[in-house]
Amino acid sequence: MTTEATRVVLSARPQGAATLDDLRHEPFECPDPGDGQVLLRTIWLSLDPYMRGRMDDAKSYATPVGLGEVMTGQTVGEVIASRHKDFAPGDIATGMTGWTDHAVIDGGELRKIDPEVAPIQTALGVLGMPGLTAWTGVNHILRVESGKTLVVSAATGAVGSVAGQLAKAKGLHSVGVAGGPEKCAFATDELGYDACIDHHAQADGKAMAAAIADAASDGVDYYFENVGGKTLAGVIGNMNDHGAIAICGMIAWYGGKNLDEGPQMPMLWRNMLTRKLRAEGFIIYDHWHRFPDFLNEVAPMVADGRVSYRESVTEGLENAPAAFLDMLQGGNFGKTLVRVGADP
Amino acid sequence: MTTEATRVVLSARPQGAATLDDLRHEPFECPDPGDGQVLLRTIWLSLDPYMRGRMDDAKSYATPVGLGEVMTGQTVGEVIASRHKDFAPGDIATGMTGWTDHAVIDGGELRKIDPEVAPIQTALGVLGMPGLTAWTGVNHILRVESGKTLVVSAATGAVGSVAGQLAKAKGLHSVGVAGGPEKCAFATDELGYDACIDHHAQADGKAMAAAIADAASDGVDYYFENVGGKTLAGVIGNMNDHGAIAICGMIAWYGGKNLDEGPQMPMLWRNMLTRKLRAEGFIIYDHWHRFPDFLNEVAPMVADGRVSYRESVTEGLENAPAAFLDMLQGGNFGKTLVRVGADP
Repeated sequence: MTTEATRVVLSARPQGAATLDDLRHEPFECPDPGDGQVLLRTIWLSLDPYMRGRMDDAKSYATPVGLGEVMTGQTVGEVIASRHKDFAPGDIATGMTGWTDHAVIDGGELRKIDPEVAPIQTALGVLGMPGLTAWTGVNHILRVESGKTLVVSAATGAVGSVAGQLAKAKGLHSVGVAGGPEKCAFATDELGYDACIDHHAQADGKAMAAAIADAASDGVDYYFENVGGKTLAGVIGNMNDHGAIAICGMIAWYGGKNLDEGPQMPMLWRNMLTRKLRAEGFIIYDHWHRFPDFLNEVAPMVADGRVSYRESVTEGLENAPAAFLDMLQGGNFGKTLVRVGADP
Repeated sequence: MTTEATRVVLSARPQGAATLDDLRHEPFECPDPGDGQVLLRTIWLSLDPYMRGRMDDAKSYATPVGLGEVMTGQTVGEVIASRHKDFAPGDIATGMTGWTDHAVIDGGELRKIDPEVAPIQTALGVLGMPGLTAWTGVNHILRVESGKTLVVSAATGAVGSVAGQLAKAKGLHSVGVAGGPEKCAFATDELGYDACIDHHAQADGKAMAAAIADAASDGVDYYFENVGGKTLAGVIGNMNDHGAIAICGMIAWYGGKNLDEGPQMPMLWRNMLTRKLRAEGFIIYDHWHRFPDFLNEVAPMVADGRVSYRESVTEGLENAPAAFLDMLQGGNFGKTLVRVGADP
């Protein structure tokens, strides 16, 4: 027996910016679970910027998606059938099942979710990988101290919004950078940033530098880097001695865009030397062992509202490609989700 | 009473590359020491790349030299007259007295040197600031572990030569980058590098990357950065996961030269993210408190020959400007010194 299902596969490798032609929604026959496996019906699919990197056939920290293969992605779903002792039909679980409405996966690669703690899709956002990424960057890469100043780019995104709120809860002066007045208003009004800079209103790195100098009058001690480009160019000259940069993403440069936008290399290096800065890249896969500590600290903050979150929901797996491309252009607002199936 | 003396002052701020017209050798009347002060007769003057930065009127980690003021520099000299309790005529001492053959300085800013330990000019090199810089970079910034691979640029310079030897003594695979076959032969034959790459023979960052890949077959775990430019471009793609870069200098870019040479910014940032690299700038003034630990460890290594050194000596203070410019072009070989006066 099999299940009639649909999925989104990589149909072509992007030449520069990704397009709808690079992704294809198609039917497939989902097999029954084998021994130790589970059949999951997808309810929520997470869309994340890192997925753009998987579409290229370049050396990266993860294997690229092959042509004709299902796009990588994390989902939350309902167990339909199980041949794994830890899962029973009706359970809610999360795993890397990809852009598909049904999947068979080893039970050992799934994590069960308690629907009583928070809405189940938070396992893809504030209480999932983006939240853990933010928490790790703030606490283990930047190692922030209260009273200092943090700048967060993509400040209202799934990662940035958590980073800003965690820093605020620790008593830092927090400055967000986001695209457009609506996001900036959300950053200050809902996420508690002390200030937010609209990068659409900054013509270049020089204008960005002036805006950051204005918003961070004591200089910048920490930069949570999600974008690269002119925001990085604007931050670097405002860094204080012994400042730190956590390199988490560089969405401004993904797909070969805006490569001339950003600081000149000698200027970056000179600032790093004379101001004795530390810059450190990190990938969340090295930090999964921190997940229990993260959940212990942040789940109560979500429950009592100290950490809030916003979702950008697209209905239907067939609309995932357009939603994904829109997110890469900054059209999303908060955690980008696709509702693939109905709640149980 | 005063002493007839000469000094080298900054006569003009360089426009791009520094020239002989920017420095002037001139007579002056050196005053007698006041209370708590010492009159020092210079024997040795150290020339260092950082001095180029002091000639510019730009925000840096140190105050620029003013027009008409004596150039900054560390010297070793003989005490001629003293009104400080810790110093007596005939003592040998080192301090930041500048490019001058006589100077009056507070005794508290001088450090006495024991001429029995090593030749007195080593206080300017292997047992002075360059040695401390190398030791700090290797041990406290890179935090090297045996069995891993280190690349050192300006590998035969005052800092690089010590960094390479310290790493070798700790059991690392060490790869130097230096300018020309003579320096490269010295790097492998005298300094113990496992391999040395002649950067004159590498047309660009791509060629450098291939040469480094060849010399560091297990990849690069640590990079001791003294130069920037095409060497950095060649190193970055060869870094292993969780590698570290200690940013100590960037001589290739000083004076606004070769600004297009080096990695493109997005390429650097991408490597830092996907390989989870750490880059950290450091300035030795933050690390002076480590001097006793450094001296305890490295002085015996110099005494028994485990750490050797080479000097590039120019005779006469009047020749210091030309020697300095030559050093900036890579014409020096080892620690660059000017003999300003006779031994006691």
